[in-house]
Amino acid sequence: MSSFGQIFRVTTFGESHCKAVGCIVEGCPPGMQLAETDIQPQLTRRRPGQSNLTTPRDEKDQVVIQSGTEFGITLGTPIGMFVPNQDHRPKDYTETDFYPRPSHADWTYLRKYGVKASSGGGRSSARETIGRVAAGAIAEKYLRVAYGVEIVAFVSSVGRVEMPFIEQMRTGNPDPGFLDWLNQVSREQVDADTVRCPDANVSEAMRDEIIRAKDASDSIGGTVTCVIRRVPIGLGEPCFDKLEAKLAHAMLSIPATKGFEIGSGFPGTAMNGSIHNDPFVMRTRPDGTTSLGTSTNYSGGIQGGISNGENVYFRVAFKPPATISQAQATSKYDGEGGTLSARGRHDPCVVPRAIPIVEAMAALVVMDAVLIQNSRALAGSLLPANPEKNPLMYGQ
Amino acid sequence: MSSFGQIFRVTTFGESHCKAVGCIVEGCPPGMQLAETDIQPQLTRRRPGQSNLTTPRDEKDQVVIQSGTEFGITLGTPIGMFVPNQDHRPKDYTETDFYPRPSHADWTYLRKYGVKASSGGGRSSARETIGRVAAGAIAEKYLRVAYGVEIVAFVSSVGRVEMPFIEQMRTGNPDPGFLDWLNQVSREQVDADTVRCPDANVSEAMRDEIIRAKDASDSIGGTVTCVIRRVPIGLGEPCFDKLEAKLAHAMLSIPATKGFEIGSGFPGTAMNGSIHNDPFVMRTRPDGTTSLGTSTNYSGGIQGGISNGENVYFRVAFKPPATISQAQATSKYDGEGGTLSARGRHDPCVVPRAIPIVEAMAALVVMDAVLIQNSRALAGSLLPANPEKNPLMYGQ
Amino acid sequence: MSSFGQIFRVTTFGESHCKAVGCIVEGCPPGMQLAETDIQPQLTRRRPGQSNLTTPRDEKDQVVIQSGTEFGITLGTPIGMFVPNQDHRPKDYTETDFYPRPSHADWTYLRKYGVKASSGGGRSSARETIGRVAAGAIAEKYLRVAYGVEIVAFVSSVGRVEMPFIEQMRTGNPDPGFLDWLNQVSREQVDADTVRCPDANVSEAMRDEIIRAKDASDSIGGTVTCVIRRVPIGLGEPCFDKLEAKLAHAMLSIPATKGFEIGSGFPGTAMNGSIHNDPFVMRTRPDGTTSLGTSTNYSGGIQGGISNGENVYFRVAFKPPATISQAQATSKYDGEGGTLSARGRHDPCVVPRAIPIVEAMAALVVMDAVLIQNSRALAGSLLPANPEKNPLMYGQ
Amino acid sequence: MSSFGQIFRVTTFGESHCKAVGCIVEGCPPGMQLAETDIQPQLTRRRPGQSNLTTPRDEKDQVVIQSGTEFGITLGTPIGMFVPNQDHRPKDYTETDFYPRPSHADWTYLRKYGVKASSGGGRSSARETIGRVAAGAIAEKYLRVAYGVEIVAFVSSVGRVEMPFIEQMRTGNPDPGFLDWLNQVSREQVDADTVRCPDANVSEAMRDEIIRAKDASDSIGGTVTCVIRRVPIGLGEPCFDKLEAKLAHAMLSIPATKGFEIGSGFPGTAMNGSIHNDPFVMRTRPDGTTSLGTSTNYSGGIQGGISNGENVYFRVAFKPPATISQAQATSKYDGEGGTLSARGRHDPCVVPRAIPIVEAMAALVVMDAVLIQNSRALAGSLLPANPEKNPLMYGQ
Repeated sequence: MSSFGQIFRVTTFGESHCKAVGCIVEGCPPGMQLAETDIQPQLTRRRPGQSNLTTPRDEKDQVVIQSGTEFGITLGTPIGMFVPNQDHRPKDYTETDFYPRPSHADWTYLRKYGVKASSGGGRSSARETIGRVAAGAIAEKYLRVAYGVEIVAFVSSVGRVEMPFIEQMRTGNPDPGFLDWLNQVSREQVDADTVRCPDANVSEAMRDEIIRAKDASDSIGGTVTCVIRRVPIGLGEPCFDKLEAKLAHAMLSIPATKGFEIGSGFPGTAMNGSIHNDPFVMRTRPDGTTSLGTSTNYSGGIQGGISNGENVYFRVAFKPPATISQAQATSKYDGEGGTLSARGRHDPCVVPRAIPIVEAMAALVVMDAVLIQNSRALAGSLLPANPEKNPLMYGQ
Repeated sequence: MSSFGQIFRVTTFGESHCKAVGCIVEGCPPGMQLAETDIQPQLTRRRPGQSNLTTPRDEKDQVVIQSGTEFGITLGTPIGMFVPNQDHRPKDYTETDFYPRPSHADWTYLRKYGVKASSGGGRSSARETIGRVAAGAIAEKYLRVAYGVEIVAFVSSVGRVEMPFIEQMRTGNPDPGFLDWLNQVSREQVDADTVRCPDANVSEAMRDEIIRAKDASDSIGGTVTCVIRRVPIGLGEPCFDKLEAKLAHAMLSIPATKGFEIGSGFPGTAMNGSIHNDPFVMRTRPDGTTSLGTSTNYSGGIQGGISNGENVYFRVAFKPPATISQAQATSKYDGEGGTLSARGRHDPCVVPRAIPIVEAMAALVVMDAVLIQNSRALAGSLLPANPEKNPLMYGQ
Repeated sequence: MSSFGQIFRVTTFGESHCKAVGCIVEGCPPGMQLAETDIQPQLTRRRPGQSNLTTPRDEKDQVVIQSGTEFGITLGTPIGMFVPNQDHRPKDYTETDFYPRPSHADWTYLRKYGVKASSGGGRSSARETIGRVAAGAIAEKYLRVAYGVEIVAFVSSVGRVEMPFIEQMRTGNPDPGFLDWLNQVSREQVDADTVRCPDANVSEAMRDEIIRAKDASDSIGGTVTCVIRRVPIGLGEPCFDKLEAKLAHAMLSIPATKGFEIGSGFPGTAMNGSIHNDPFVMRTRPDGTTSLGTSTNYSGGIQGGISNGENVYFRVAFKPPATISQAQATSKYDGEGGTLSARGRHDPCVVPRAIPIVEAMAALVVMDAVLIQNSRALAGSLLPANPEKNPLMYGQ
Repeated sequence: MSSFGQIFRVTTFGESHCKAVGCIVEGCPPGMQLAETDIQPQLTRRRPGQSNLTTPRDEKDQVVIQSGTEFGITLGTPIGMFVPNQDHRPKDYTETDFYPRPSHADWTYLRKYGVKASSGGGRSSARETIGRVAAGAIAEKYLRVAYGVEIVAFVSSVGRVEMPFIEQMRTGNPDPGFLDWLNQVSREQVDADTVRCPDANVSEAMRDEIIRAKDASDSIGGTVTCVIRRVPIGLGEPCFDKLEAKLAHAMLSIPATKGFEIGSGFPGTAMNGSIHNDPFVMRTRPDGTTSLGTSTNYSGGIQGGISNGENVYFRVAFKPPATISQAQATSKYDGEGGTLSARGRHDPCVVPRAIPIVEAMAALVVMDAVLIQNSRALAGSLLPANPEKNPLMYGQ
């Protein structure tokens, strides 16, 4: 469906060539200051035409809030948001339209719906993600104001060019400094380079990798790592809506994603429990409270599906974009073999522009989890204390 | 929450030490033959005490259908299922109960709910998965009877011992024979070895790896790969409920999982689009129909979030079990440092017993997607044909 | 929440004084011809300023489809729809703004959200219903094209002026001719009079009743009866989502409603079962098929929560509008007693304009029920026939 | 579906003749004392065989909690509950089985599912309501402990025998004393008479009406009125999930219901707004706080879909039971006309036993609304105050 979330819920609409794209956000807490200026920066980070690494197609992507606020304050009612498509005329068709593009959604959309948008993939268009980013920006603002939550995503690999922590984790020798680094990396650092990798030692190689693919009329994949800091303790709804399960759902719903791993991820499967287990230590939280924390964080900030107050971090795999401008041997819709030649403008690598989308989906997951946990926490606070506290049930 | 699925929906209940565990399955198609004998085999594959690789705790796990069938036929009404816990007395507490177990859910459950089951993790217990497996068996039966769907999961790695296809994909040299092999691997082959790896060349090394961890009072992780064959074309609900997004959600909701990748997954991020794109070819399906297919399958059977009729395959990462019997330096609930000594019986490696759980969750995802697509397909079939078929919209 | 429906789902946005109102419709079957001309007529029937019986406020309410169609054909993707508010400037406040309007939503919105729209009720504005009507028009078109469904609502009472069938049912002497009349009443007949009662014998008295209230700076309530013809057999999802339960939910979600009754309704509670039971008879359906029907229809076309193929009919109670222009003794927000004087333009009676809203909500309920039943019906059709058919289970 | 509620969610299972009926309750706040003794009283009020006014079928209906509590304290995890059916053998079929029972669910179940339980209506059985009552008792306990909420339903009419307030409201002359009476009526008063009408002046006439129907091998309908006291202010989720809309949904999902009205209901449609509007007055709440209240309560405690702190009261119509023991002229499944003779034991009037079911569904609606509003209230409380409070937005 085109809705995501249970209480904080976004519903999106819009294809490539329709009049507008946008979304409705339900469940935003009332009384929060909110204006387009809170939303536009992430949309601008997402929009095409930002550098020579992305598609030259240029869209302004100016968002307008239609409802749900007054005098710059949220009312608690649905927030309608709207971005006009600049280019939405139906186009003439050509020889290439007889071919479903390989690894694109043309054919599956046609088979699923019996009809498809002339642009091909319809909702599989990257423009669909505008509604996500707009909604995510609202969630993110609330989380920042209420809890100081910080969400930072960055490009961790392009092709075979990786940030060092990936190989370190894979070989079982993680650098303890990585957790500290994760704790302070900022969006400013990420945006310092157009490739959006905050590690200057590898970002140039990444850029070369993208340019190489572009020059070869080809494309290349990559990964995005995201850290969420100051996540409230207790988020996630076992057994099916564990926090990592919702994050995985959110991330794999982004176009072109092929994988998700949290904390130690796939490399963690090669470890022994005696190493992988995160020992508890008493620690002081950023908000000044003290509580148990863990001295390592292979868990990625989630245990038993519930956030434990440590940083949540995860990595998302993006395939090489399916749209390439070199000729491909494939078949027409009717099965006749042939060669599909170049068509359209495209990104040679999606990860630089995927950054705000990953951040948005992360924000949506955490925000919804906060609201659901709120309902329980406030309900529990109204119950009388139980006279005899059993140490088995209350921790001590 | 403890419900999964929109139309075919399972709701589970039960902790480690309560009276019973079980589930209610809503949305099962009426008129299907169904008895406990359809469900018990997968529960038996899941139950503890099967070999020296798993926990010695022995539970019969006999399921009883309480409702929703009559004379062995499903009525279309909710199917209640029920497995008594053999051991459900509250136990005395000891020194170890003052410690939250590292990387287990004791502490997060306590913080989330303000109370926890005496057994520790409550719903994070492996017994919670019984309801999933029972429900999944029903979904699987329908899919097999109606579409010939086959779901086979197997252990693809334990620690650093991997089946060869993993390394081949990682280095960008996948063996084309792997797709053929995926097309025929059977549960019988999987169960031929207690480790549940159907590749005799590596299964012994995997078993050694598990025994080594067990003998060291330690644990070890692993991965499970799963293939779903004969998936109907057109399943998955973009943009948020893409088929891979639901699979990722389902898999990351299984206890101890840390990652999910579909098709080419993380290794695919290192490929160029010109290699990664799956060319279309005309092919004959197992059901005798002809339609487009793809000659490679880096997509993992899903394009644009929608199944394309090729095999769906994915890999799931399981961390080393958190419960180990060696001493661990950690802290008590009150923050006082100390050493947590051995407690309880446990699996040194979860992947052998995770096989039916992965299969069950896969079946639940596909079944729900079938029912949702059904609603659209039948609705569309009642509309009159449009007189002028635009080739842009109808493929040709 | 602001979403309604499970598969065919509308999400609405917009208050009185924001930039626009509108909705997103998910789950519309693909391949259906759809244009604004399918939607505008019901919006026009709903809009203010139609006659001297309604508010003089004049809004054009022109809908624009933003997405989800191409070349006039639905794509199966979300349909965004949009109606600009002509008058959306924030206004100056006056003495009256210190008073929550009695029986309006000013005070409850303030208490629920801690903030409210300056217009007062925010989402309790009648403009909120525009999204419902637009979405309902799409549902209705599908139902008409696919099944020949006809939905006709009409004003059945204003104040104490009632159509005769109400009193007949109340006194246990229903006119059998009423069922025949329900079977043919048309929207044209309904719209023949501005009061929207198709019974010329009472419509003038109703109009007088409304004018009397208007002239007295007062308001008056009324009831709307709605019939849904050619409803497919088998709709409704027991036990909680019985068809009448969803209709009741839908109707009581319309502003100003106070009651719902289906078939014999409240008067039926005074009957004996021997009269109230609807005997089965074999009958030919409008689509030419034969099946059992009932010779009376106290059930209102629904038995056990499931449609039986007879006409579904129900009645909805609308209170007198809370906004009246005469002075009212009441209290300010701070509790200080005083007199609230006239404010704003309003409808003296809402039932004439409620007609398309009731029809829209009825269409949304039936459409969603069709899609859910579709999923089951198609699933069941793929199962093999059971060899021995037990007469207890299969009717004979 | 068989689930009700969004956060506090009950899922039920079970037909007449299966092994057991029961439910799973999700979302119960953790830390609440809960035992079977909290649940059994309402189940006992619901069970058959209580007096000569109900079916002589005798079922013990002893509930057992299977999960979700430990040492008598809720864990916040799903609560499985279970009531064995004493009589669940499949029975032989007879001549009567060839007839769908008029106004029962035999035929619609058969048409919807293509198969039906041998008992006829399957889930339309009154035994389905056991799960509702068990779940409702938990909701009710929380609401009572946390807020002092009191829910009292009572029989307000049987056939044409009505409590006087009904006629008073219908004729526009409501007795102001009725609101005071509603404010103190208790379950003890209700249960003082087997007919469960707390007005001794009419209860005997009601009993006679039921006995008369019973002696005539017939049945009779009736209405149940329910009051919910001390409802927290601010419950209900416009625009679609207004509190009255959820109550209407809940009530019309109870077997045999035909109507719902809240506050002034249908009679209120005959009033003028100047009478019907509830003036605001400052008042002291039962919990000692002061806030605005209303001096009349035609609104039924809900304005704009949101509770205002006044008593919520509503009335539900129940038809005469369809199962009667006198002969009925009707048709067989195959359309052949004939006479259906007596079959089975039944209630001549359902309203006495419907009391705990209405109370349960009311509790489920209010509880879920509390949890959803909790999520917003707690979220809003963490936002900084807005510096300039606009009187239009903040009430003064």
